[in-house]
Amino acid sequence: MGAKVTERLYHCLMSSMPLWTNHLNLLIEAAAVLAFALSGLLAAARKSLDAVGVFTVTFLAAFGGGTLRDLLLDQRPFFWVEHVHWLWVLMGLCMTAMLFMRHRHFEPTERAMQWPDALGLGLFAAAGVSKALHTGSPALVAVLMGVVTGVFGGVLRDVVCNEIPSAFRDHKPYAICAFVGGWAYVGWWWITGSAGQALMVCVTVTFGLRALALWRNWSLPAWKA
Amino acid sequence: MGAKVTERLYHCLMSSMPLWTNHLNLLIEAAAVLAFALSGLLAAARKSLDAVGVFTVTFLAAFGGGTLRDLLLDQRPFFWVEHVHWLWVLMGLCMTAMLFMRHRHFEPTERAMQWPDALGLGLFAAAGVSKALHTGSPALVAVLMGVVTGVFGGVLRDVVCNEIPSAFRDHKPYAICAFVGGWAYVGWWWITGSAGQALMVCVTVTFGLRALALWRNWSLPAWKA
Amino acid sequence: MGAKVTERLYHCLMSSMPLWTNHLNLLIEAAAVLAFALSGLLAAARKSLDAVGVFTVTFLAAFGGGTLRDLLLDQRPFFWVEHVHWLWVLMGLCMTAMLFMRHRHFEPTERAMQWPDALGLGLFAAAGVSKALHTGSPALVAVLMGVVTGVFGGVLRDVVCNEIPSAFRDHKPYAICAFVGGWAYVGWWWITGSAGQALMVCVTVTFGLRALALWRNWSLPAWKA
Repeated sequence: MGAKVTERLYHCLMSSMPLWTNHLNLLIEAAAVLAFALSGLLAAARKSLDAVGVFTVTFLAAFGGGTLRDLLLDQRPFFWVEHVHWLWVLMGLCMTAMLFMRHRHFEPTERAMQWPDALGLGLFAAAGVSKALHTGSPALVAVLMGVVTGVFGGVLRDVVCNEIPSAFRDHKPYAICAFVGGWAYVGWWWITGSAGQALMVCVTVTFGLRALALWRNWSLPAWKA
Repeated sequence: MGAKVTERLYHCLMSSMPLWTNHLNLLIEAAAVLAFALSGLLAAARKSLDAVGVFTVTFLAAFGGGTLRDLLLDQRPFFWVEHVHWLWVLMGLCMTAMLFMRHRHFEPTERAMQWPDALGLGLFAAAGVSKALHTGSPALVAVLMGVVTGVFGGVLRDVVCNEIPSAFRDHKPYAICAFVGGWAYVGWWWITGSAGQALMVCVTVTFGLRALALWRNWSLPAWKA
Repeated sequence: MGAKVTERLYHCLMSSMPLWTNHLNLLIEAAAVLAFALSGLLAAARKSLDAVGVFTVTFLAAFGGGTLRDLLLDQRPFFWVEHVHWLWVLMGLCMTAMLFMRHRHFEPTERAMQWPDALGLGLFAAAGVSKALHTGSPALVAVLMGVVTGVFGGVLRDVVCNEIPSAFRDHKPYAICAFVGGWAYVGWWWITGSAGQALMVCVTVTFGLRALALWRNWSLPAWKA
């Protein structure tokens, strides 16, 4: 009888696990996408773009990196074609922001988004490396695809806003964190053979490095004059 | 005997119809492509680009949107690979313009091109929605592909000319017209099942809205300060 | 006996030929890629980009044109995926340059790179035309793909650096040389049927024209005011 209860409990736990992790996954994914989207929204607001511009720049910031990666790897469907609901969410976000956001909210918003943004960088990089390795890319190319996934949404956002991409000129470690995290993925995967663990390692290393860089205010070395 | 004459007349009409509509189709297509190309030509002239820049920007304005759509949908061949003669036409247009166009002709040219441009927006959007639906895209993605086809030629033109795309910042309804027209396509297609009719509806709605917007001088709502 | 020596000599020569030409090919390829990469490096230095920006712009200048061509032609793998060692070389180049290059070295470097750059233009254009013809592109499209391969690395470099691409506004024959060279490829190939010879003709014509343009300081005709 006791064994039966344990068994039932175990069964119950196991069958609710996927739901739990699903919810957690969804929450993490949402935090990451929204952080990236918000960076686009703020950039568009700073340039006083109209509704079309705001949506486009927000979309590029959120999904531009992954879309570029899939174009380069010749993979379809894109994330936003498979998860169309995200397009509706972004549209709603843009509408709401244009109606309610005030300029004086920009800076606090940006500071508040730093941590979900760092999480997004880790998740996007890990997803990029994983997808590239699965399509048979060499290690270095896979790592660079991780960087592209995490960073080039912001690059496209800045190019459309007619700025030199901040990822290329602010001398803060951002892409570098994803680069190191990508090698952590590849290394862990080579040693243990577990892609699932490698994914977690990549997210942790990338997020950890980025958090350290923000906290200690690290800078990249600049050109000698 | 009378029946035979009627039959012959009918037959004659039917067999000449394709020719008629072909000519009309060609005329409309030419007006649309040339209107888009001219917008690129004028932008290139304003920046005093050289012959290479003029051709590239003209090409991007005319075919950049459709090319980007086909890249995203993974469709080949591109319109300008299937209809190479258009490349020759654009080259001839650029040559002629560089030899004969004067700056004081710019503004009247631009105003005169507004109507063929609105027609082009409708046609390009309809073609984009149709192609995306045929490749199995979800409705919203198909509508956005219509917008990309109609609008992103101008976006690429402005990015290369080092400007924030005017479609993103002039607060005039342009992409929005194509967006509404795209939904008209999808709606009509869902209700009647006729892709041919849906195409006409899309062109009419997009063109009509754009014409209204030009005529009534509509503006999109801006950011609150 | 004498015949045997001659035969052996001939044999020896023949079997060492591939090695010789391989070495020569490698040297020419390296000169071309490095010249293009250096143009990116200098542009990045002028904008004081950080390490990430320097590598990206250098990469785009070297491989952006060929990558865009392969995206348009739907060809994989990219050159830099097949020859990953080039990515390491570019990374090493960027590191070294950021540590050792001084601004006063920029102008002499640029002048010294003009000749390998002209060679690169010829080689990239020839490779582009050849690849496009092999995938069944019409002649004009193939020639334009040659131009894209040779010129659009620089275009992407300038777009990311937030400049109007110099290839579009400096009124110097650059893309035009590749355009003429591309037609030389197509013409020679049509007449003789030899793709190998056509390749050499294309490189020679493109390089020759570019060298002439540099030497005689040719300019493209500008817009009439």
